[in-house]
Amino acid sequence: MAKVAVLGFGVVGSGVVEVLETNAQSIAQKVGEPVSLKYILDLRDFPESPYRDKIVHDFDIILNDPEVDVVCEVIGGVEPAYTFTKKALLAGKSVVTSNKELVAKHGAEFLKLAKEKDLNYLFEASVGGGIPIIHPLHQCLAGNEIQSVIGILNGTTNYILTQMFQNGVPFDQALAEAQERGYAERNPSADIDGIDACRKIAILGSLIYGRQLPTDEIPTEGISKLTLDDVAAAESAGYVIKLLGVYRKLHKQVYCRVSPCLISKNHPLSHVDDVFNGILVNGNAIDDVMFYGRGAGKLPTASAVVADIIDCVKHRNVNRSVIWEDGEAG
Amino acid sequence: MAKVAVLGFGVVGSGVVEVLETNAQSIAQKVGEPVSLKYILDLRDFPESPYRDKIVHDFDIILNDPEVDVVCEVIGGVEPAYTFTKKALLAGKSVVTSNKELVAKHGAEFLKLAKEKDLNYLFEASVGGGIPIIHPLHQCLAGNEIQSVIGILNGTTNYILTQMFQNGVPFDQALAEAQERGYAERNPSADIDGIDACRKIAILGSLIYGRQLPTDEIPTEGISKLTLDDVAAAESAGYVIKLLGVYRKLHKQVYCRVSPCLISKNHPLSHVDDVFNGILVNGNAIDDVMFYGRGAGKLPTASAVVADIIDCVKHRNVNRSVIWEDGEAG
Repeated sequence: MAKVAVLGFGVVGSGVVEVLETNAQSIAQKVGEPVSLKYILDLRDFPESPYRDKIVHDFDIILNDPEVDVVCEVIGGVEPAYTFTKKALLAGKSVVTSNKELVAKHGAEFLKLAKEKDLNYLFEASVGGGIPIIHPLHQCLAGNEIQSVIGILNGTTNYILTQMFQNGVPFDQALAEAQERGYAERNPSADIDGIDACRKIAILGSLIYGRQLPTDEIPTEGISKLTLDDVAAAESAGYVIKLLGVYRKLHKQVYCRVSPCLISKNHPLSHVDDVFNGILVNGNAIDDVMFYGRGAGKLPTASAVVADIIDCVKHRNVNRSVIWEDGEAG
Repeated sequence: MAKVAVLGFGVVGSGVVEVLETNAQSIAQKVGEPVSLKYILDLRDFPESPYRDKIVHDFDIILNDPEVDVVCEVIGGVEPAYTFTKKALLAGKSVVTSNKELVAKHGAEFLKLAKEKDLNYLFEASVGGGIPIIHPLHQCLAGNEIQSVIGILNGTTNYILTQMFQNGVPFDQALAEAQERGYAERNPSADIDGIDACRKIAILGSLIYGRQLPTDEIPTEGISKLTLDDVAAAESAGYVIKLLGVYRKLHKQVYCRVSPCLISKNHPLSHVDDVFNGILVNGNAIDDVMFYGRGAGKLPTASAVVADIIDCVKHRNVNRSVIWEDGEAG
């Protein structure tokens, strides 16, 4: 019987709890033992929740419980996620996360620590929501030298751009609609300024290149300056505009950026619309391969988190993570 | 130092040898040790090949060499592939394969044998060529109950259909062109009659359902009866026609078939053209996710085979395969 603690009972956290419960039987079959939720750490109490008995407010309860195999950090942001992750790994617990900000900033440190302790630090959910991309890059494409990754990595901006292109909605109005539908935060800067996409391409790039690529050195431009005139100009030339995160490796040099780009309507990424994400990978054996699906949302993101939990339980004491070094890219 | 034997020096086999050589350095980094080719089994001699010293004609040389960790079966067909695979597993060697006919027919037996011997029998290359689909289904989507798989699984027929739709080429002429370009065999039946797609959807279905789904019970219809009149009728209604392999699970009942289908032009699979494959998976957490890429060809297929070789070497004596039972689907 494997025991899991979920840190943060927000959208993703409640999705993880739901997937572990709904699919408990098939997960137990795949793992070879039941995987059950023991704690949910949150500041709030949730007296109405069926999971209220599992809520704790003190992280030390989780840390000091030897039954907890896997800590699932879905708080987001740097603190207290950083401290909790480090303490959990030091206490011999594997950690899985959907926290792209933390992985983009401190991935190298946690991967090293996990390796030293024969644990795992897995983060499939940090890029592309539920879309399998981290594992396929690390494992299924391991026979390739990866030459480029081009991704529509942010669903909010892709929804806005789709509204601008398909329905002629101006940027401000499309953003307001995205906020109404819950696709965009009240403070939408991380999405529309490309910060979220930058963290994600930094994670993919670090994974491929084997070094932590610093997000503050990646040229990043968002979509807030785009107008319907730009849309008309692009359309008349046979293009759409997508916010792309791009990683390229050329002669041992790595090049990364985030910016709105013109894409021909024949290009597979041009059909990735609404809140969907699409990630096109080019390897020297496989040529182009694309991964497409819901890049965010409660259950899709939880799907990736739970897959990593299963992987941790199936590989207790076997480090399966990648390693990337701290420091500058060449 | 891990040693590999490749059985069959045809298109895929020579691709595997090429990828192992070209990407030797990055593969060694990922594995933590070099992975080198020790033998190539073929009936022919290849006196001009730089690999002529590695050619052997007697499988027992490979079988009796304790240095060989992984046997890579890319002969295709049932015999002698079946006998070689069984002997290799019994001799304590993991086996990787691109042989969809053998996996669709005898997968259950080899998976059971591999499990008993703490070895691996991996077959990522048997479906979708280089496209990661077996591992993602088995691992990255393990938190889901998979409800359906809908796939364009055969590049040859997809090329023919694309020619018929985009260029108005009649079936017979499009088939002749596919043969000229090397996309179709001289005897094209396995492709155009849907037999190849049937094997592939049987493999995916068996993987999800956990039982070997017998190919001869899957209703299978090919594309040879399609005419340009059908194309015109589909087009006028806003559809394209694709040859789809379909797996659905409904109330514990499994349903599989292969047939040409109308797809709306808004559907993500409708944009999968030419020799590309696309596989749309629906899970109860992730919703829709699509995998897209080159479903055949020397290097893309080799990419998947080499990924499985790497996986075997990284997990010596750890069974990582799935298990599916022999016998009837419920």
